[in-house]
Amino acid sequence: MRGRIQALKNSFKKAKIDGYIVAGETNIFYFTNAVGATRLLVPAEGENVLYVRGVNYDAVKETARGCRVDLVKPGEDIDKKVAVLIKKLKLKCVGYDTLDSSVYLKLKKALKETGLKAMNQLVWELRKIKDKTELGHIKRAAEITNEGVRRAVEVIKLGIREYEVAAEIEYAMRKLGSQGVAFETIVASGPRSAFPHGGCTNKKIQKGELIVLDLGAKYEHYGADITRTLLIGKPSRKQAKIYEIVRKAQQMAFESLRGGVKVKDADGTARRIIEQAGYGECFVHRLGHGIGLDTHEPPTLGSEAKDLLKVGNVVTVEPGVYIGGFGGVRIEDTVLIHKERAERLTKATYDLCV
Amino acid sequence: MRGRIQALKNSFKKAKIDGYIVAGETNIFYFTNAVGATRLLVPAEGENVLYVRGVNYDAVKETARGCRVDLVKPGEDIDKKVAVLIKKLKLKCVGYDTLDSSVYLKLKKALKETGLKAMNQLVWELRKIKDKTELGHIKRAAEITNEGVRRAVEVIKLGIREYEVAAEIEYAMRKLGSQGVAFETIVASGPRSAFPHGGCTNKKIQKGELIVLDLGAKYEHYGADITRTLLIGKPSRKQAKIYEIVRKAQQMAFESLRGGVKVKDADGTARRIIEQAGYGECFVHRLGHGIGLDTHEPPTLGSEAKDLLKVGNVVTVEPGVYIGGFGGVRIEDTVLIHKERAERLTKATYDLCV
Repeated sequence: MRGRIQALKNSFKKAKIDGYIVAGETNIFYFTNAVGATRLLVPAEGENVLYVRGVNYDAVKETARGCRVDLVKPGEDIDKKVAVLIKKLKLKCVGYDTLDSSVYLKLKKALKETGLKAMNQLVWELRKIKDKTELGHIKRAAEITNEGVRRAVEVIKLGIREYEVAAEIEYAMRKLGSQGVAFETIVASGPRSAFPHGGCTNKKIQKGELIVLDLGAKYEHYGADITRTLLIGKPSRKQAKIYEIVRKAQQMAFESLRGGVKVKDADGTARRIIEQAGYGECFVHRLGHGIGLDTHEPPTLGSEAKDLLKVGNVVTVEPGVYIGGFGGVRIEDTVLIHKERAERLTKATYDLCV
Repeated sequence: MRGRIQALKNSFKKAKIDGYIVAGETNIFYFTNAVGATRLLVPAEGENVLYVRGVNYDAVKETARGCRVDLVKPGEDIDKKVAVLIKKLKLKCVGYDTLDSSVYLKLKKALKETGLKAMNQLVWELRKIKDKTELGHIKRAAEITNEGVRRAVEVIKLGIREYEVAAEIEYAMRKLGSQGVAFETIVASGPRSAFPHGGCTNKKIQKGELIVLDLGAKYEHYGADITRTLLIGKPSRKQAKIYEIVRKAQQMAFESLRGGVKVKDADGTARRIIEQAGYGECFVHRLGHGIGLDTHEPPTLGSEAKDLLKVGNVVTVEPGVYIGGFGGVRIEDTVLIHKERAERLTKATYDLCV
């Protein structure tokens, strides 16, 4: 943790700041190993201070690393406390990751002599590259996630309800030590599979329906993310065709990934295949996203993004084709970027038919 | 939904605004019945506009009520679109629920002629009072939650791991149609029970340890919240004493609740009992919180809060005593406020020993 805070401090000079307020929950965890604190103040010189309310004080005190833990008493205003310390340290310009507008305006008012700048990219430059500990947790989350898919394939049969499939997936993952889900499990069947974020309902799964499963376990605060599309019985020609297009787009995009590749080129590789097959308008989202402590984090793999992939990025590769009233297909893996290739961390059957 | 948006509009005059930006995810759902949209603009006069990106467009189009759905294309800036419409409508002062500082500054810059004011209380004044539909969902969430506790009591035995108990709780709730959990399930045993937000680990549960279970199902987007403290075998004198104090504090606070009561008095009722027993410093949080679409929402039942309870509020009542290294006891129910009394929606055994 001390190394991560030091890496943040190392970016101060170039960013022309002499302090940083960390307010995002997962950012605070990233830098301190503590859950439940409210703010972390990192001055260029001197000790880092973690502010925490009474309800989480003992837990934070036991787990926090690389900072002094300051108890915020009932009735005390955390941001006023932060402002007092910033003034005492005579900081000239302070960056921050994320602040609600009300907090921003309160700090701005209290800190007339100090600049206050949104700079979440400083944190993301660090968090985008996963270290060994993080990769260990993500890999375990992916392994558990794979077992979730295996269980779904096992239980999906005619007439089972979508939420019953979710129950089996989540139970299998929890029994393997998952810390719950990284995001709401999706089991979307039939016309509902055309909604990329379809959740799950009490709908019974029928023969010949496309079934999109999108799931991910959380392990030691890190997530994984996988999507498979399944079908009971035999697919129609159109279903089989769309499946093959998405499968090819996912495979080609995956094979294009390595350190130094432009994220928009990776998106373009998948998008071109889908466009050339005549379904360009049905691929209604970006190719993928970074994943770690947050399920959706930088880098975004989209046509508008400017990032280059870097060794140590963990991203999803998830093209999809969605046709209103008909259904949808999405195939997704969580992958790790190496110098010359990418590595799939999630692994499950690509067979459409169960 | 139309009625809820109208109720918001009815509050504009007193608040001296002629428009409102809704940006909070659950607030957008509350007003539109849609999940996955990004902004809702509610002008005093004329149509309400819901802004949504392509990935969720079809789903939002199918579910949204009381507004026009506007597709935000790739590369388009949602907030610039909102600003353009605000200017076109010549709105003079616009309230909003919550905005990140960067979005606030962007809007502020684009809207030189229009006031922009944080006013989340306008939404909370509505959301604090649950209507019949909402109460139906919360009651079902509570029933499912009760079954989660029943299952935990059934499976807790010597040597079971904390996360295994969580697995059984969540599986039981999912099988009953829960839409997942309202918050991360807590199974905190032994010294860990002294951490109010202890999560669960792979620790094995031992005889004679305090075990804090804190869990809640989500049903149709609404949550419930219950805590019970259990123990295998016989409690020590100190454990039994603390349990009785917390039980009495919870019962007395519950009995004090009805429409018109000051929330700080409810908190005070529980706090006084715990203080008089000599454990005041160990009750490190407020008595409770509102619950609905969010697990923690207004009204807060704390010593600093100024609210009066109102008929239709749904709140938790959850005093606790936490002793570092020894363990903790918390007892919590989700309750509905009536004119002359409160009603427990969560129901489970208060027996300490399993």
